[in-house]
Amino acid sequence: MAEKNKIENPSPLDGLNEYLHSDMAQVNALILERLKGRIPLIEEIGAYLIQSGGKRIRPLLTLACGDICQADKEKTQKLAAAVEFIHSATLLHDDVVDGSLKRRGKSSANEVFDNKAPVLVGDFLFSRSFQLMVEGDNMHALQTLSNAAAIIAEGEVLQLSLTNKTDITRDQYFDIIRGKTAALFASACEVAPILAAKDRDTQRAFHTYGLNLGMAFQIADDVLDYSSHANNMGKNVGDDFREGKITLPVIICLEQANEEEKKFWTRSMGNLEQKDGDLEKALKLIDAHKGVQKGQEIANSYRKNAQQALEHIPDSTVKQYLYDLTEFVILRES
Amino acid sequence: MAEKNKIENPSPLDGLNEYLHSDMAQVNALILERLKGRIPLIEEIGAYLIQSGGKRIRPLLTLACGDICQADKEKTQKLAAAVEFIHSATLLHDDVVDGSLKRRGKSSANEVFDNKAPVLVGDFLFSRSFQLMVEGDNMHALQTLSNAAAIIAEGEVLQLSLTNKTDITRDQYFDIIRGKTAALFASACEVAPILAAKDRDTQRAFHTYGLNLGMAFQIADDVLDYSSHANNMGKNVGDDFREGKITLPVIICLEQANEEEKKFWTRSMGNLEQKDGDLEKALKLIDAHKGVQKGQEIANSYRKNAQQALEHIPDSTVKQYLYDLTEFVILRES
Repeated sequence: MAEKNKIENPSPLDGLNEYLHSDMAQVNALILERLKGRIPLIEEIGAYLIQSGGKRIRPLLTLACGDICQADKEKTQKLAAAVEFIHSATLLHDDVVDGSLKRRGKSSANEVFDNKAPVLVGDFLFSRSFQLMVEGDNMHALQTLSNAAAIIAEGEVLQLSLTNKTDITRDQYFDIIRGKTAALFASACEVAPILAAKDRDTQRAFHTYGLNLGMAFQIADDVLDYSSHANNMGKNVGDDFREGKITLPVIICLEQANEEEKKFWTRSMGNLEQKDGDLEKALKLIDAHKGVQKGQEIANSYRKNAQQALEHIPDSTVKQYLYDLTEFVILRES
Repeated sequence: MAEKNKIENPSPLDGLNEYLHSDMAQVNALILERLKGRIPLIEEIGAYLIQSGGKRIRPLLTLACGDICQADKEKTQKLAAAVEFIHSATLLHDDVVDGSLKRRGKSSANEVFDNKAPVLVGDFLFSRSFQLMVEGDNMHALQTLSNAAAIIAEGEVLQLSLTNKTDITRDQYFDIIRGKTAALFASACEVAPILAAKDRDTQRAFHTYGLNLGMAFQIADDVLDYSSHANNMGKNVGDDFREGKITLPVIICLEQANEEEKKFWTRSMGNLEQKDGDLEKALKLIDAHKGVQKGQEIANSYRKNAQQALEHIPDSTVKQYLYDLTEFVILRES
């Protein structure tokens, strides 16, 4: 495949994809195979979502960690596909709950198929993920992933119950993203040493790497929603603002807000009474209070934690990619 | 508890509940314990649904079959709770998809909490069910239940894709209810002999019993939606009619419909252009074509299959209750 790799500075994601090319091809084939069935609507919606150009960072993490731990290839691939199915189910249900119109730059599934089918197809993908986990044939790995699934759901419900709450704290925000994002990153990494029957410390190192990578990833994503290049990422700029989903850049502003600013946030994000020019005003306040810059600094501290966790793992090409990935997730397009 | 049991002809459900009282108390405690967590909204919605007076027939089946097979009590209870969590998750998502206003005679969760939280809390219950399955610590049982979860989701999507389709066939209808109802009944029964490591024929007998009981149960439920006592069951009479969900009594009419009747069904259930008096007209047509009576006969044939499956299982008090249950599910209030 070397001749294809003409990008001068390929991202670590591209690098990992190249390095794990044949494993990833197996996982992609497995995903497509398990979407097939006797119900065309499932295949249609599943394929719409899964083939819409996601980065597949989660299954790639499982494969990468499996490669480092020399875990059984076939079982690792099954768990990698299971991880992607959990993630896809979550995306479908998220978009229904948020009423999102876009996902990865395309119309979201709920926009194309209305809300009903994505709820049920999400359940199907969720079930498929558990069937794949069963095929992974390791009760401890199954436990880790089913725990992650429960923590994700808790994170999503917590996020919903704190939507429009302008008194949300940083800790509550970290709690939400630990649930909705970082828990699955952590488990995606941890199942590899579990499959390979590595010791508890090694399992913990992979878990810590994934957890902190996921935190950095989500914070960077939330910061991106208020930064100028967001348009290139297939997200609508200011989606979170419009939905009243209060993330780190706004929390930083709220912590320092004067009375007039507090009123603005309460009206626009708390009560969702938004007027023309409100997003621009929000962006100006975030700029004044360094919401993007400080958010990036916090993402950066999680990046360092992820890098430190890797110190417990023997050096290898794949480990270097995992290291570089920690930089990549916080620097993309922001 | 004998002094409490003053009903002259207690139903086999009451009888089973009485007989398995201490096991069922453990399962109920387990269900409540696993709803608890750091997110009040989950507990609130979960409790709203789970404590709203469902019959808990599915976990009771698991306990009853576990009693017959002398399966490990604690593991059987975990799987029984898992079965109820799967069912509850499905109910929450069903009501969101159907836009149902009532569930068991009370306002449905989506009516009280809007659609967003029930989608996410359903996911949480689903995850909890898998955590409980993992604790059941039997990979074959886990496989059986995760397969059931996938078949349920397929059944639900199939039902959605055939909503308002007046050319739906009996076979398609049976396919839907096998998925959305009978598969979980079958697995709820089958996991007990699996846990107890009974031979494949015994597992198959329990599976066949549950599957046919579930078919009879769902057909009776669908027939009930067009019969006069439905009002007592906490359902709105004619719910299926209003939603354009075409079930057996209407399929029987459609098979024999003349041109004018076809036009009526197409307008009212196909296009959902419903006028005053349409439900009454539907009920008259169902009466004329014996939709209720013929539906009951078909439910009855599944009842017989369920009874036959029990012949492969040694006689016992609990087996007699399971036998009586096959009568009970098709005779309730219709």
